[in-house]
Amino acid sequence: MKLAEIYMQFQSDITIIENELEATVKARNDVLSKASIQLLKAGGKRIRPVFVLLAAKFGHYDINSLKHIAVPLELIHMASLVHDDVIDDADLRRGRETIKSQWDNRVAMYTGDFIFGKALETSTYFDNPRIHQILSHAMLEMCLGEIEQIRDQYNWQQNFRVYLRRIKRKTALLIAVSCQLGAIAANADVFVQKQLYKFGYNVGMSFQITDDILDFVGTEKQLGKPAGGDLLQGNVTLPALYVMHHDPKMKKLIEDLLSSESPNETEIGPIIEMIKNSEAINYSVKISDQYLSKAFDALDKLPDQIEKKYLHEIAAYIGKRKF
Amino acid sequence: MKLAEIYMQFQSDITIIENELEATVKARNDVLSKASIQLLKAGGKRIRPVFVLLAAKFGHYDINSLKHIAVPLELIHMASLVHDDVIDDADLRRGRETIKSQWDNRVAMYTGDFIFGKALETSTYFDNPRIHQILSHAMLEMCLGEIEQIRDQYNWQQNFRVYLRRIKRKTALLIAVSCQLGAIAANADVFVQKQLYKFGYNVGMSFQITDDILDFVGTEKQLGKPAGGDLLQGNVTLPALYVMHHDPKMKKLIEDLLSSESPNETEIGPIIEMIKNSEAINYSVKISDQYLSKAFDALDKLPDQIEKKYLHEIAAYIGKRKF
Repeated sequence: MKLAEIYMQFQSDITIIENELEATVKARNDVLSKASIQLLKAGGKRIRPVFVLLAAKFGHYDINSLKHIAVPLELIHMASLVHDDVIDDADLRRGRETIKSQWDNRVAMYTGDFIFGKALETSTYFDNPRIHQILSHAMLEMCLGEIEQIRDQYNWQQNFRVYLRRIKRKTALLIAVSCQLGAIAANADVFVQKQLYKFGYNVGMSFQITDDILDFVGTEKQLGKPAGGDLLQGNVTLPALYVMHHDPKMKKLIEDLLSSESPNETEIGPIIEMIKNSEAINYSVKISDQYLSKAFDALDKLPDQIEKKYLHEIAAYIGKRKF
Repeated sequence: MKLAEIYMQFQSDITIIENELEATVKARNDVLSKASIQLLKAGGKRIRPVFVLLAAKFGHYDINSLKHIAVPLELIHMASLVHDDVIDDADLRRGRETIKSQWDNRVAMYTGDFIFGKALETSTYFDNPRIHQILSHAMLEMCLGEIEQIRDQYNWQQNFRVYLRRIKRKTALLIAVSCQLGAIAANADVFVQKQLYKFGYNVGMSFQITDDILDFVGTEKQLGKPAGGDLLQGNVTLPALYVMHHDPKMKKLIEDLLSSESPNETEIGPIIEMIKNSEAINYSVKISDQYLSKAFDALDKLPDQIEKKYLHEIAAYIGKRKF
């Protein structure tokens, strides 16, 4: 079963969500409309909506209700990307110009605010306050994750626990609640809701660790930006943490380079090479795999349905992807 | 009846809201906690919560329920101030350093996001989806207002209608829904809800026009910042619009100054003086008064209660204030 085949199974419902996304962000303001539509068109795998749909198959599946939770989850993800761009001074995302570089920081900030607001407006479809609580909690944790990332930038003393908590907040939680909310919106069993949350959380952790590995081992073409960007921006991820923890000389080298006036991609090249050739990558892959296998454990406890296989397939793809 | 006396009447409930505000923004993150608490301590008149309480007196008043709508409204206002600071390069607000200058733009953005998120989390107390719809709609309109302000900066061709729509979105709507939601949360009559919305909208318009007048006629001490800041930043408000509409020479003068490399407070001084001494101020006061009198009309239709007098008093204060 290939990933594309799973998407094919849900094609008509994904199209419904896609149309709903577009209709939702259309604003009576040109700048906002253009900025938001541009973001939408930049694509992405719509992994959060797909998880909503698959999770809902374990309950009473109704796309006309589900779209009101799939859309906000994708929008919250999009809004956080826009605000991320403000922060990162990132001029490229998926190889395209970001909203920020094309317009400016201020427009990017309000576009993010606008998309956040639209996410919330869409979710008001549901009466169930638990859905709103889970959604707003996820938004808050994402903010905490972002603030922690700022706080921890260029901090070479941080430990693994701090890193794991940060990626939980930044990435894993929204994927976890996508699975959970799909199940809740479809009135699935509480046990099923919990297992799907666990599944999503572990997939999300594996996903982010894989992302952080790729920032070292990926090619510029694969990444849509030069490798080593995280380190250059002072974002200390798992491979760098491992190296700095096990090799005091490398630690000194990295600290020296990044505390210099303006480190650039040429200077950082040899350091990236050293990390690529160290045990750090294997170690990080191992940790990612551990999360993945916990995700599979959660899946095992779900009722036997074809969607179990689909979720397994997507999880494996996400945790093992090379780009 | 003085304003302080009205606040005295509600002192214990305002204290409950104040404590709830503080408890709500306390985060497990130092930077966020400090930034948010600092914002809270900077004070403000808590006019939105006070409107919630007064409006609720026309229904079944229960502070333990009302606080869950008063707090989000004040938080949404606070979050928009933080994001405003990112935009305005404002280093001073109410004479204190802004979050932005003290930390940096990125922290200000996420502090705003965090406070928005907390506002939504608090409001999940209510099952009534209408409350959430009104709240998220108000947030969205505020975003549109901010984006329009960016779009319209340094645009000397804009008309009065564009200005009025902008201040409705930026300011008046949140005050309108504060009154409306207080009434809804207290299950007041639909007719009462509507009149209170109208009252709030007109008070909000008068409030913002007064603010825009004060930016010309206020002293640095009153404003906590030098006069003329709006014009210097290219924000075209009612007094400037009037002058530019009635005096082509002044229009040319203003356009020339503001399209120069870096206009400063010394250069803009004479222009501010000319606007102060023109008909623009009287005209703007007249428009503000018209909104105020519409607010009073809406009040007149409410049942006879002491709170009618209180609302009248606060509206008059807001529309006529000198600082």
